[in-house]
Amino acid sequence: MLTRTPRRSLTDQLAERFAERIRARLLAPGARMPSVRECARQQQVSPWTVVAAYDQLLAQGLIEARRQRGFYVRDLMQKVPLAQVNRAQTAIKNIVNGVSGGNAPFAGLPSGSRIHATALIRGMFHPPSGQAQPGAGVFPAAWLEDARFMLAAVRKVAASQALREASFSYGEPMGDAGFRHMLVNRLAELSVPAQTGQVMTTLGATHALDIVSRTLLKAGDPVMVEEPGWSVEFARLDALGMRVLPVPRGPDGPDLAVMERYCEVHAPRLYVSVSVLHNPTGYSLSPGSAHQILQLAQKHDFHIVEDDSYSHLAPDHATRLCALDGLRRTVYVGGFAKILAPNWRIGFLAAPPALTERLLDTKLLSALTTPSILEKALALCMEQGQLRRHAERMRRRLAQARVRCVQLAQAAGCSFAAEPAGLFGWVETGVDTDALAQRMLDEGYLLAPGALFHASRQPSTLMRVNFATSQDAAFWRVFERVRG
Amino acid sequence: MLTRTPRRSLTDQLAERFAERIRARLLAPGARMPSVRECARQQQVSPWTVVAAYDQLLAQGLIEARRQRGFYVRDLMQKVPLAQVNRAQTAIKNIVNGVSGGNAPFAGLPSGSRIHATALIRGMFHPPSGQAQPGAGVFPAAWLEDARFMLAAVRKVAASQALREASFSYGEPMGDAGFRHMLVNRLAELSVPAQTGQVMTTLGATHALDIVSRTLLKAGDPVMVEEPGWSVEFARLDALGMRVLPVPRGPDGPDLAVMERYCEVHAPRLYVSVSVLHNPTGYSLSPGSAHQILQLAQKHDFHIVEDDSYSHLAPDHATRLCALDGLRRTVYVGGFAKILAPNWRIGFLAAPPALTERLLDTKLLSALTTPSILEKALALCMEQGQLRRHAERMRRRLAQARVRCVQLAQAAGCSFAAEPAGLFGWVETGVDTDALAQRMLDEGYLLAPGALFHASRQPSTLMRVNFATSQDAAFWRVFERVRG
Repeated sequence: MLTRTPRRSLTDQLAERFAERIRARLLAPGARMPSVRECARQQQVSPWTVVAAYDQLLAQGLIEARRQRGFYVRDLMQKVPLAQVNRAQTAIKNIVNGVSGGNAPFAGLPSGSRIHATALIRGMFHPPSGQAQPGAGVFPAAWLEDARFMLAAVRKVAASQALREASFSYGEPMGDAGFRHMLVNRLAELSVPAQTGQVMTTLGATHALDIVSRTLLKAGDPVMVEEPGWSVEFARLDALGMRVLPVPRGPDGPDLAVMERYCEVHAPRLYVSVSVLHNPTGYSLSPGSAHQILQLAQKHDFHIVEDDSYSHLAPDHATRLCALDGLRRTVYVGGFAKILAPNWRIGFLAAPPALTERLLDTKLLSALTTPSILEKALALCMEQGQLRRHAERMRRRLAQARVRCVQLAQAAGCSFAAEPAGLFGWVETGVDTDALAQRMLDEGYLLAPGALFHASRQPSTLMRVNFATSQDAAFWRVFERVRG
Repeated sequence: MLTRTPRRSLTDQLAERFAERIRARLLAPGARMPSVRECARQQQVSPWTVVAAYDQLLAQGLIEARRQRGFYVRDLMQKVPLAQVNRAQTAIKNIVNGVSGGNAPFAGLPSGSRIHATALIRGMFHPPSGQAQPGAGVFPAAWLEDARFMLAAVRKVAASQALREASFSYGEPMGDAGFRHMLVNRLAELSVPAQTGQVMTTLGATHALDIVSRTLLKAGDPVMVEEPGWSVEFARLDALGMRVLPVPRGPDGPDLAVMERYCEVHAPRLYVSVSVLHNPTGYSLSPGSAHQILQLAQKHDFHIVEDDSYSHLAPDHATRLCALDGLRRTVYVGGFAKILAPNWRIGFLAAPPALTERLLDTKLLSALTTPSILEKALALCMEQGQLRRHAERMRRRLAQARVRCVQLAQAAGCSFAAEPAGLFGWVETGVDTDALAQRMLDEGYLLAPGALFHASRQPSTLMRVNFATSQDAAFWRVFERVRG
């Protein structure tokens, strides 16, 4: 709430609030600013105050006026001609709908989406308030405090002779051998057959996905990615100059007809998939769909990278492409950010033998090795069963939170676009969630609007909620009031 | 030495020895195998044994025969038509020599050089014997044991409340705030003026250089890199699809006439430089050269990334581009792998304010954050002066090793192509060092042949020695005998 003070005018305060959000990417480049009337009503100030504040933002180069259309956040980094954006979006839609001949040159997604994608990440790091954030991507810190065993393990490892020896050289290029041995055991539990020589460690799952895409693709190459999907994946591929081909994701798996069409027209080299507890929908792949995807991959000769970041929240017997395929044309990517704690930054990949050397080259060229002290500590926690017991506790706690959140969301007039499962709910709000997210920011809540999960950032009435951080009735009361 | 045993024939043993080296990249793809006669003499076996061993390698697809020319290691990953390689090399030479008009399309370096570049890294990880390796890029582990204080700091941090809080979230996107504060102080000692907001942490200096090149360049962009230079830099840029323009590096700095010509013809966006204790020559930039480089950068509007990996081995008052420029169009990259221990993987960059947000986006998209526990521990070591005292000890010890190594090398008939300084000597051997390196491998020594430091891998009679690992008279005796 803005309050008149002798030292700062309402105009200055309002301008500064918007400027901060634009700089923090909480208002994405290209986003439409509220109309003067709407803003005046929301902030309970006069329209003149809003006009004066927008004038300041115009002078600072943070927004721009478009004739007859209002004010928009300026894209400070990249200028993409609008015609190109529209052409690309039309091309995507035509291909997905099977309308166009499809042989016309395909411009790929408009670049610049990476700017939008970082908005959610930035918000995660700088939440608008101390409240639990329904748009967050990870468990609240309080839930992860049970994973204190990792700190004890680090102290133990730092006192050990083995670490002394390892830490004075570059360490193993593939990662700590003991840790990789534990990972092979974990993969076996998931029916993914891997030898130690196929497993390498990374700085979290994000780094693993980066290594895979840099190794298998070069700039300009087409790549299939599920939509809706995790915006960082779209953004990274876009920043690397890849052409993102969004594949609609349904309850059983990707839309196979669209995939087949992409294969015929563009011959993509890679398909990026979150098979189990897909983000944001919570969908898990069906066995039949998995089989068909692998047949398609065989027929059209593409690789698959399966991001299994949520594996600790799902049953071990969930269907995984890497298990069916036996790591022949699939690469498994895993991490511990969800279950252990995000800042440890420990991830890994398991790949077909023929790819491991090339992937290792990319790892070495991009970052050399990863810190073995953390890998040794986690190996210890896995060996002693601490990680497994912790994951079980988290799943139980999450199940309770999910039930409570679903009740509250339904009572607030929302429905679930996908059967609630895992960490995230895919919620139908009935209103434009981009605008809703901006209004909720004024109340101190970070939402994850549906547009963030679309490669072309199309407006959406859906939003992603984190079940662990959305079980507070106070949030849903504010939500109902603000949605109107 | 091969020894006949009842269980394994000499042929099998010889074939396996070569197969191992090819797989470990110690014999680079494209390298010529010794002639049958030469190999028979070196290994003290009959020519028939060599022919049979080569037959096995041919059958395994590891080598290929070229008519009238002998046997070559197969490039298992990439196929580059030889005509393209030759064209590119000719183009580079013409431009460097100012022969060609220079407006002809410039093919960039032949791709595939990244394969060669990893040879040295692989060798670092898997030394051919337990002996000190003159080709190594870092201090021997025994020298780094003084840096045990880092282990104590990690234990202390792992027991602290501050870490508990940090480790259950993603941490600060830019890196641990206390550590970045210490880095700002360190940069001030080097006369590089930076605010905390300009400094971000990375997974070692390699990751920092990767972030800078991915942010400022896109595939196909030309980029100037010093030659001779650190092969991983050539290789990474090549793998990202950049066009590497090698700039000859002299005692005072880069060849400014070549740089100017590149700027006129190709308008490169970035210049990658190791100003202080350049790898492999040990050269340090002169103030006059630094000033001229910055004038050129201003005139032709390119950025500079200054890799200061060896800063702890040089005086603080050495000339740095970032100090003269005040981080206006320069990006500073630093790390601790040389002085502290390679496996901690802690690096950082300091950038112009206008670039920090873009660089941060690339960091987040490629790996999210870095582990704050290690950054907090190093900050503690810096605050308590342990790192500074350790660096002083290392410089004194290195100076003694350098004197001894220079004497031994000169006694072995070598001269120094550059005034000995820092960690590396650039040694003139009088013979082809690629072939020499292969023969020394048989004796259990890893050399760093000069070709590895050239973007186009041209044959060289130079080699890089690590002063800390080349002060053993036994090595130089073997060297003299093998060189012949």
